[in-house]
Amino acid sequence: MKESAGRKQGGASPCAACKLLRRRCSQDCVFAPYFPADEPQKFASVHKVFGASNVNKMLQELPEQWRGDAVNSMVYEANARVRDPVYGCVAAISSLQQQIELLQTQLAIAQAEMVHMRMRHFSADNTAMDSSGNAYDA
Amino acid sequence: MKESAGRKQGGASPCAACKLLRRRCSQDCVFAPYFPADEPQKFASVHKVFGASNVNKMLQELPEQWRGDAVNSMVYEANARVRDPVYGCVAAISSLQQQIELLQTQLAIAQAEMVHMRMRHFSADNTAMDSSGNAYDA
Repeated sequence: MKESAGRKQGGASPCAACKLLRRRCSQDCVFAPYFPADEPQKFASVHKVFGASNVNKMLQELPEQWRGDAVNSMVYEANARVRDPVYGCVAAISSLQQQIELLQTQLAIAQAEMVHMRMRHFSADNTAMDSSGNAYDA
Repeated sequence: MKESAGRKQGGASPCAACKLLRRRCSQDCVFAPYFPADEPQKFASVHKVFGASNVNKMLQELPEQWRGDAVNSMVYEANARVRDPVYGCVAAISSLQQQIELLQTQLAIAQAEMVHMRMRHFSADNTAMDSSGNAYDA
């Protein structure tokens, strides 16, 4: 029989954190709601990068409604650090900053080109009006 | 007398990490080159977020030439997590992604407007040529 994802209330199935830490998963386990038994890699990453006691402390210091987001961001950071031990998710930040610089340059070029086109258009319109002499008839 | 920034070779001044951990700063201390005594906050942040033993392990696993960059990125991540315990530096990633989406939209609008302007210009030129009949004289 397949076990359910999270820790069973009062059951024998520990959460992924308690399983990895080989400890009893209590009813009020701080990890259990965020590290279900069927996603062991989530806790393995944050454990490797932040350490179980730091994750525990960070969760305890947060109101419950923020803990899910905090776990998600820690898992994201930890996976990035496991993939890239030198730059971690700072590599993503650098890459995004480079993309922004490129887009800003492309936008500035496009806007300058539009100003130039408008001026040419405006000057062509004026020339046409001067030669036809009926600028105000239209 | 002001002490020098780093650990003195064989001297009495421990690096910021060994000072915080209250341990002897040895000649081959893995922290000393990256956590000088006069920047205690750098180590305090990574210690709080990653834990000293994880930082030690991560540094030991890297070739020396990458350790400085690894420390800088860990200090950046740790400071972000201290400032924002829920999202850490993932908040910066979200914000940069939003900026990119905004810039991509602005660029797409500018490019569409340019195409529109070129078509209007082209069509105006053709009309002028049709009416003057001397399109090839210029």
